[in-house]
Amino acid sequence: MANFKGHALPGSFFLIIGLWWSVKYPLKYFHQRRKKSQLNHNYARLEITEAAVRTVFSVIGILAEQFVPDGPHLHLSSDSHWVKLMNWQHTTMYLFFTVSGIADMLTYLITSVPLGIDRLLMAMAAFAEGFLFYYHVHNRPLLDQHVHSLLLYPVFAGTISVFLEVLIRDNIVLELFRTSLLILQGTWFWQIGFVLFPPFGTAEWDQKDHNNIMFITMCFCWHYLVAICIVAINYSLVFCLLTRLKRQGDGEIIGIQKLKSGDTYHTALLSSTEED
Amino acid sequence: MANFKGHALPGSFFLIIGLWWSVKYPLKYFHQRRKKSQLNHNYARLEITEAAVRTVFSVIGILAEQFVPDGPHLHLSSDSHWVKLMNWQHTTMYLFFTVSGIADMLTYLITSVPLGIDRLLMAMAAFAEGFLFYYHVHNRPLLDQHVHSLLLYPVFAGTISVFLEVLIRDNIVLELFRTSLLILQGTWFWQIGFVLFPPFGTAEWDQKDHNNIMFITMCFCWHYLVAICIVAINYSLVFCLLTRLKRQGDGEIIGIQKLKSGDTYHTALLSSTEED
Amino acid sequence: MANFKGHALPGSFFLIIGLWWSVKYPLKYFHQRRKKSQLNHNYARLEITEAAVRTVFSVIGILAEQFVPDGPHLHLSSDSHWVKLMNWQHTTMYLFFTVSGIADMLTYLITSVPLGIDRLLMAMAAFAEGFLFYYHVHNRPLLDQHVHSLLLYPVFAGTISVFLEVLIRDNIVLELFRTSLLILQGTWFWQIGFVLFPPFGTAEWDQKDHNNIMFITMCFCWHYLVAICIVAINYSLVFCLLTRLKRQGDGEIIGIQKLKSGDTYHTALLSSTEED
Amino acid sequence: MANFKGHALPGSFFLIIGLWWSVKYPLKYFHQRRKKSQLNHNYARLEITEAAVRTVFSVIGILAEQFVPDGPHLHLSSDSHWVKLMNWQHTTMYLFFTVSGIADMLTYLITSVPLGIDRLLMAMAAFAEGFLFYYHVHNRPLLDQHVHSLLLYPVFAGTISVFLEVLIRDNIVLELFRTSLLILQGTWFWQIGFVLFPPFGTAEWDQKDHNNIMFITMCFCWHYLVAICIVAINYSLVFCLLTRLKRQGDGEIIGIQKLKSGDTYHTALLSSTEED
Repeated sequence: MANFKGHALPGSFFLIIGLWWSVKYPLKYFHQRRKKSQLNHNYARLEITEAAVRTVFSVIGILAEQFVPDGPHLHLSSDSHWVKLMNWQHTTMYLFFTVSGIADMLTYLITSVPLGIDRLLMAMAAFAEGFLFYYHVHNRPLLDQHVHSLLLYPVFAGTISVFLEVLIRDNIVLELFRTSLLILQGTWFWQIGFVLFPPFGTAEWDQKDHNNIMFITMCFCWHYLVAICIVAINYSLVFCLLTRLKRQGDGEIIGIQKLKSGDTYHTALLSSTEED
Repeated sequence: MANFKGHALPGSFFLIIGLWWSVKYPLKYFHQRRKKSQLNHNYARLEITEAAVRTVFSVIGILAEQFVPDGPHLHLSSDSHWVKLMNWQHTTMYLFFTVSGIADMLTYLITSVPLGIDRLLMAMAAFAEGFLFYYHVHNRPLLDQHVHSLLLYPVFAGTISVFLEVLIRDNIVLELFRTSLLILQGTWFWQIGFVLFPPFGTAEWDQKDHNNIMFITMCFCWHYLVAICIVAINYSLVFCLLTRLKRQGDGEIIGIQKLKSGDTYHTALLSSTEED
Repeated sequence: MANFKGHALPGSFFLIIGLWWSVKYPLKYFHQRRKKSQLNHNYARLEITEAAVRTVFSVIGILAEQFVPDGPHLHLSSDSHWVKLMNWQHTTMYLFFTVSGIADMLTYLITSVPLGIDRLLMAMAAFAEGFLFYYHVHNRPLLDQHVHSLLLYPVFAGTISVFLEVLIRDNIVLELFRTSLLILQGTWFWQIGFVLFPPFGTAEWDQKDHNNIMFITMCFCWHYLVAICIVAINYSLVFCLLTRLKRQGDGEIIGIQKLKSGDTYHTALLSSTEED
Repeated sequence: MANFKGHALPGSFFLIIGLWWSVKYPLKYFHQRRKKSQLNHNYARLEITEAAVRTVFSVIGILAEQFVPDGPHLHLSSDSHWVKLMNWQHTTMYLFFTVSGIADMLTYLITSVPLGIDRLLMAMAAFAEGFLFYYHVHNRPLLDQHVHSLLLYPVFAGTISVFLEVLIRDNIVLELFRTSLLILQGTWFWQIGFVLFPPFGTAEWDQKDHNNIMFITMCFCWHYLVAICIVAINYSLVFCLLTRLKRQGDGEIIGIQKLKSGDTYHTALLSSTEED
């Protein structure tokens, strides 16, 4: 799918998951700090739902790559020629994401699956994506090659970061780092689309101009700055929301308690401040 | 041994050990979780046996490389020329595996050998294999070089993973990761044999066709997916087997207890569920 | 700013912060060892001030790069040409340092910001600097390229070291390592200025002489030795100062106590030696 | 010192320290396991002596490189040419080893020097050696370049391993790994001497023969196997020696105790077995 859509679709896919993670991980973090253990069950359900959605997305990706009108329709070779290798490569990437999604579901569903297997397979999925990209990009014009190869930074940084999570689980900093890298990947896919296949009839980019390479490199840094900002904003929003919800909840409790007995007021206030 | 057999033999060697590990590590993991400490002695014996088998295999490999009809028969140079360097390189690889096997045995036999030495020497054996392969592959046709160089990924990933086990021992995720990499290595050796020396009279592969390179890269990912599946299936089989054996064992105990006294039934059931 | 000043300014910036760190971290370390917890509040204030200064410096850097007479004045492109890409690249670097400075402030000001985020963003700022430098240096004369590429060593070593601090916080060795790398970066920026733009009318360096390359490589090592010495000297000075201050303080206390009661002398001396 | 001696001398230097370490670290390990804390003081003295010897060796190295008849005699440039850059490079390497030696001494002499600084500076000394070697080897014949570049493996592996010791101190496996790498470095320096400057009038090596490259690569692996064997043998010897000494010591105590009182025999035997 060497066109604008073919880059916008996976970009949106990564972006949506990245945005969702930038809400999910702060939520989990604040709840863990307040030690409301009764919510753990809900989180497991949340994780399973997310993993299921990711698996479904990946399967849709596989089906789309195989059964679009000019797809290989599951034929691998004909007359000793490989059929539509590009689609097969994308299918392979989606297969890894499917496996990672299934592993995530199983980790939360079945207690005998060791914790960390989900992170290991997520790291392998990221590695496989980077690995295929690396060999995929050879023999292209300079700018095309450069703009694709920049994608390898978030992919391999993500691989290392997620692999670290095998050993150091539930570290909010590593989780937010992973989230920011995923958002970067999502926005960069869109950028690749805009650079290589300008959608609104704008002029094509000169593939050999060294200034374009320099601009794209810098632009990549801006994308990461934007990704950091998005994560920071969503983190703050979640914090504010939880604080407001908690105050309301505490207010109600206090109100109820006031009705019952006047002198319990201070106790309730005390316990609510202790929880912070 | 630049022929089909020369790749199928080490491939089978790695594959057998990989398959065995995919059974051994889940077994160890489930037993550790149930804290049946009386089994530790048996596991030490198992590890020693495995290490001995690996050592014997490696020594057989050395002897085969040296004393096949066209081997060097322990002659290193004659008339200021090196004799059969390829066989000597393979001998060196097997030597490292022999050393690693001996270190494994000693670690379990002698308590004054520090834990972790076995993993360090296994990492070094993997590194030596990758190191020799790396310089071994230069000056070959493109496809030959590519298909061999892909082998470096599981080898060096294994080196890093096993080195981590020096510091973080008995981590089931790292052990399963290592297992999957070993199986990948085994199946990929077979693949190399099929690509470079087609055994059943099939057409030779075009060494310069870029599509072949792209297909092989993708095929490598599929091999890893198969390796993951094999590990996952064996893990599940071991789990099911252990659960069934345990139920039978508990059933017998319960049966015996029932005969003795009717009211111990619930206690036995309780203790059996507590153990899960 | 491809002139002597353009390298001396960032060099001084890094050098000043490096020198400050070589005083700050030993101070923090010695206080932590003596467990004077009442000083923690002051340290938080110190860190916030430092972060604020760094942020202000970075913003000044951005403004300088944009609004110098031959700067881009926030114009990115005109007539389908990129305007002053070099200034934009420097702006981007400073932007990352600004973000890192803000993150440092927030970590100490707001308790709901997770510890480690400041280190992660500092690592990212270092990485972005190295990343932009890496692509920045292509297509230059040999010596120019070499002298700039050496800068990548402290930058990427700093990235890794600071990233480790995400996981292992308040490790004095890692902090001093980071400090020495920052000083090295500072002095090396000055060296680049002296080599590429000799300021006092001295002869220009032959860009193609291999001996110059060899000398510069060695010179880089000397800079690091100097950086180590600076850190060691400042560490010792802080230690001596704190010991002297402590003795004076203890002396005063002892003096006061003596006036009050003669026999408390030994107790005071005892407690002062116990604290060491 | 581009001759046989110039490689044999540093080789012997590394080899002697490596052999000493292969005795020191097992000694320390076995004593730590038996928790004879009264020996700690002696070990500190041992470490200081070793560091002092290393520092003296390094200073001698600096003086030799500077004041040999054809040395630079501390002149760096004359007539705008660099004087004897090779000697200056070696001087730089020795300077780093001097700094590392001093840091080792200070760590054990002064308690206010943080533990880990010695390891950090040792890692930096190893890195500086590898760094200078890396740029030193360019523009040489193929075999010369290859045989020197192989040296980078133990040097950089040592850098990483020693850096890990900053974070994980007193890990016997990391210490033995470092020891084996140092021995490898020592023997490989000798090998370089034999290959590039055959000392006994043997024929010179063909610098362009690819078989020579292949042999040297393999030979490097054999050197490491020898290094492993040396470490293993010295480890065993230390263990046997300590066991024998302990038995004798226990025997004497038992003998003495027997003379005093007959019934303390069993108690003494018990305590001696408990200590194992």
